[in-house]
Amino acid sequence: MKAVIVAFDRFTDVDVFLPWDLLNRVRFRDKEFSVRIVGPSPKHRSVCGLELPMHGGVEECNHADIVYFSSGPGTRDLIKDEHFLKQLRLDPNNQIICSMCSGALILAALGILEGMSATTYPTAIEELRGFGVEVETTKHLVTHGNIGTAAGCLAAIDLMGWAIEKLYGQVVRQDVIASVLPVGQGQACIY
Amino acid sequence: MKAVIVAFDRFTDVDVFLPWDLLNRVRFRDKEFSVRIVGPSPKHRSVCGLELPMHGGVEECNHADIVYFSSGPGTRDLIKDEHFLKQLRLDPNNQIICSMCSGALILAALGILEGMSATTYPTAIEELRGFGVEVETTKHLVTHGNIGTAAGCLAAIDLMGWAIEKLYGQVVRQDVIASVLPVGQGQACIY
Repeated sequence: MKAVIVAFDRFTDVDVFLPWDLLNRVRFRDKEFSVRIVGPSPKHRSVCGLELPMHGGVEECNHADIVYFSSGPGTRDLIKDEHFLKQLRLDPNNQIICSMCSGALILAALGILEGMSATTYPTAIEELRGFGVEVETTKHLVTHGNIGTAAGCLAAIDLMGWAIEKLYGQVVRQDVIASVLPVGQGQACIY
Repeated sequence: MKAVIVAFDRFTDVDVFLPWDLLNRVRFRDKEFSVRIVGPSPKHRSVCGLELPMHGGVEECNHADIVYFSSGPGTRDLIKDEHFLKQLRLDPNNQIICSMCSGALILAALGILEGMSATTYPTAIEELRGFGVEVETTKHLVTHGNIGTAAGCLAAIDLMGWAIEKLYGQVVRQDVIASVLPVGQGQACIY
C-alpha cells in the first residue's frame, strides 16, 4: 500500500508535515506501507521558508492507494497549470483521494468534486464555489465515498484517520491517532 | 523576539514541524519575530527519514526568548553528549524553556528540572525519573514559571500556546491557535 502527499511551492507547513507524520505511523502496523511526498518540481519551499526535496513526481499519484493534496497559497497557481493537472489521472473508484484546506481547489480543478459537497479554508470558499462546488462551511470534514475534504489544519487528524481506516480498518486508525494524543487523553504508545 | 527549535538526528517529525508552523503564525502579529531550527550538525534526519538543513547551531539557544527542545529517539544520544550540553547556557529567569515528550530528558540533563515536576512521553518516563525528576504521568502540560514540558505530540498546541502567551499575551495566543483549529470549532483566519 502507498500514500502520496502532494506538495508544491508555498505549501502550508503543517498541512504537509502533520499528515506525513501520521501516515508514517501506519508503518508500525504495516512495514511495507510507503509514504511519499511528491510535487511538480524536485524541491518545494513552504510558506514558512523550509526547502523540501520531493521523493518523486506527481505521476506517482496515479498508482497510490491514498492521494492527499496539501494546501497553501501555491494551490492557486496549480489550478491554472494544465501541465500539472494533465499528469494526474486519478480514479476515485479505486483510490482514496483527499485534501486539506485550499487543496480542495485542486480536486475541483480535476473535476473530482463534480456534483459533490466539500469543505475548505475560509479564504478559499469563494474560489471553491467558483468551480460549482457546494461548500459546507461549518464542517471540518466532508466525505463522499473515497473522496474526503477537510479544513482547518488540525482537521488533518480526522482526515488522515478517515483515510487510514478506509485502507487498514478501525483498529489501525485508533492506534495511529492514540499515539499522538496528549498524555492523559487516551494517549497510547505504538512503538 | 526570537524562538529557537532544537532538532537532532532521529527527531520526531511532528514535534519539530507542528511547533515550527505554530510559532511562524506569530509573525502575522509581529513580523520581526524570528523562528529558527537549530541542531548540533548542519543537517538532521527525522525518524521518518526527512533530511532537514538547520538554520544555525545550538549556541543560538543562549540568546533566544523561547527555547524549545523537540523529541525523538535522538535525545538519548544528546543527554550523554558533553559537547552538546556544554554549548547550552540557558537562563530560566530570562528565557522561556520548554520541551516535548523525550525532549524533557535534555532539560533534565542540563539541570533545568532540578526540584521540579515534569511530563514526558510514556517511553521516557523511567529515564526522566532517573534524573530525579518527579514525572506527572497523566498531565499533558506541566509548567513552573518559565519552564514547560508537554507530552503526546498534539500537546504541542497547548505548549506553544503557553509559550506564545508568555511572550505576546493572550490575544496573540488565541489568534494563533484559532488559525489552526478545525473549521466549525472556533476556527479563525489571521491571514
